[in-house]
Amino acid sequence: MSRFWNKLVSTLDPYVPGEQPRIQNLVKLNTNEHPYGPSPKVLAAIAAHTNDSLRLYPDPTALVLRQAIAKRFDLTPEHVFVGNGSDEVLGHAFHALLKQDAPVWFPDITYSFYPVYCGLYQIDFRAIALDDQFKICVNDYLPALGAEAVLGSANRALGAGASSSVVARAGGIIFPNPNAPTGCASPLADVERIIAANPNIVVVVDEAYVDFGAQTAATLIEKYPNLLVVRTLSKSHSLAGLRVGYALGQPELIQGLDRVKNSFNSYPLDNLALAGATAAIEDEEYFETTRNAVLHSRDALTVGLQSLGFEVLPSAANFVFARHPDYKGADLAAGLRAKNIIVRHFNKPRIADFLRITVGTDAQCAQLLTACREVLTAIK
Amino acid sequence: MSRFWNKLVSTLDPYVPGEQPRIQNLVKLNTNEHPYGPSPKVLAAIAAHTNDSLRLYPDPTALVLRQAIAKRFDLTPEHVFVGNGSDEVLGHAFHALLKQDAPVWFPDITYSFYPVYCGLYQIDFRAIALDDQFKICVNDYLPALGAEAVLGSANRALGAGASSSVVARAGGIIFPNPNAPTGCASPLADVERIIAANPNIVVVVDEAYVDFGAQTAATLIEKYPNLLVVRTLSKSHSLAGLRVGYALGQPELIQGLDRVKNSFNSYPLDNLALAGATAAIEDEEYFETTRNAVLHSRDALTVGLQSLGFEVLPSAANFVFARHPDYKGADLAAGLRAKNIIVRHFNKPRIADFLRITVGTDAQCAQLLTACREVLTAIK
Repeated sequence: MSRFWNKLVSTLDPYVPGEQPRIQNLVKLNTNEHPYGPSPKVLAAIAAHTNDSLRLYPDPTALVLRQAIAKRFDLTPEHVFVGNGSDEVLGHAFHALLKQDAPVWFPDITYSFYPVYCGLYQIDFRAIALDDQFKICVNDYLPALGAEAVLGSANRALGAGASSSVVARAGGIIFPNPNAPTGCASPLADVERIIAANPNIVVVVDEAYVDFGAQTAATLIEKYPNLLVVRTLSKSHSLAGLRVGYALGQPELIQGLDRVKNSFNSYPLDNLALAGATAAIEDEEYFETTRNAVLHSRDALTVGLQSLGFEVLPSAANFVFARHPDYKGADLAAGLRAKNIIVRHFNKPRIADFLRITVGTDAQCAQLLTACREVLTAIK
Repeated sequence: MSRFWNKLVSTLDPYVPGEQPRIQNLVKLNTNEHPYGPSPKVLAAIAAHTNDSLRLYPDPTALVLRQAIAKRFDLTPEHVFVGNGSDEVLGHAFHALLKQDAPVWFPDITYSFYPVYCGLYQIDFRAIALDDQFKICVNDYLPALGAEAVLGSANRALGAGASSSVVARAGGIIFPNPNAPTGCASPLADVERIIAANPNIVVVVDEAYVDFGAQTAATLIEKYPNLLVVRTLSKSHSLAGLRVGYALGQPELIQGLDRVKNSFNSYPLDNLALAGATAAIEDEEYFETTRNAVLHSRDALTVGLQSLGFEVLPSAANFVFARHPDYKGADLAAGLRAKNIIVRHFNKPRIADFLRITVGTDAQCAQLLTACREVLTAIK
């Protein structure tokens, strides 16, 4: 606390990112980074811009990158917004579009940054409980069924909501597809039902992990003016270290984001990030190859964990979410950590016994499985 | 307008950055970029990080960069906050520290992003008029003299304030030193008087251009817990294209900024920006050499403009702010643009006849002077 902070600062409960350890020789499976590096074309593009031109400001409109993204999705640059990682893009979406008179709705188990944005921008929110299989229940997000559904949801939720009263009207909706940290995907038809049933509010589909097995809602953009799709290059394009995310939507939504962005920071993407991201979007072959390698490793990892007795939720992401019926999640995470393997553990209701394990290389997955076997034996 | 925007978005009046032209062969003297590229050590550091490690998230605490900055100013890393350009740093400072019950005060002629942040974060502000020599009047910022001083200021101001009533109490104060776009520096003793006289509110000194001739307030940080100094690597370190800024202050102020930053974007600086910025801070010799070259060119440019009849305000920045008694600023800017030279012109009260001209290389300054001579003759 400080007398110089305003009231807002004192009340914030900031996001805590996964650990970025400085020690070497760790098997780092805690923040869902891609096990393979970025495309050689990305590295070449960055090298080509590492010169005197760094003295010049970047293009504040990031036109070349937006053109590349637009081309990939058969949209125009006016349908594309870019930012400093999808976290910044999401922040602007909360500030510009999801902050409305009614609360924003999102799942009770989801990306834990959403309630943090609500704190920052003073937005009421309502956490809608996932079902017992940790799936998003479409009916809970349909206003015609709203009051009843949310009552049902409130009975399932374990204290994760911002308010206790039943609110039948959403001011905005956001959910990841696939969801995090569960990895479970919603079928595109379900996603469309939510968008179509809420034509007067913005529905944000956070597709950070979509390339690993879910269907993108980007194909619905021309049909629904209330749809915003948010994506990142951090995961499937192996560029967590470059900080580039983007949003796709009809131009009026993009213009809303632009107005907030241009009232905050004219140039959130530096020259090197612009060059590298453009090359990453354009190199579809490398993207496919490395993505498929991860999918292959995920299958093997899932089978391996199941053979050790783990329950593994069906994953459409580059991680698996798994629990063992006989062990506490915190104990397993600590045991793995002692063996220099770090995974993510969330000490939260309903998911405290799960581990979120990033899909690494086949060698890393094998190390993880060996370590799990040893930990299970040791703490039996 | 869009029905999906909230009220805030509709009311915003976003910042308009200087043009970043895509055509070649322009003499670009409009956005105060350094005429010389960054240190070769910066380019080498970036190259050393352009590899597979881009798949990994950056250090969210940016510790290595903060250590380098702290060392330069004889402070600790706990005194240092870093962000995606000083614009992002300033944005967080407005959101966390300058948003208070009373309005924030800043000069009427100053960095035009300040009122934009006030719009974004819904902060009342009061624009305090510069004097007739375009200098900041210290007395206007001293609360003991407040009511009287602000009344005097209100008589000078030309409609730039947010409110018309006289407000004698500030919730926060921010001003650049040297000021922009005037380039005029305040002596450190004047800056200290403002900080010392306002011990209960945060005073932000925006030192974007300080390395070109003003005295830094960083030396006062241990003495004043209410002082925040904001700086950038965009200007004197030739890294506008890398987007790195920072703030210096006592740890409680830095923690306030951290809380907002960590509620918005965990990793605003990418791996390459962290590496390049650290190398730039550490290469003091290159910094001195290139800075001194700019100072030398500025002297020659000033003399040259004066010999053409321009009034040139005394500059402590890497630009000059100049007007000609016989010509309109807009006409001069258009005439130069027709000769492929771009300078910045602000169509605003009191300064509409000024041009803000970045100090380029000696060759660029000579081109500018030749073009000015031709334009003056042509539109006589």
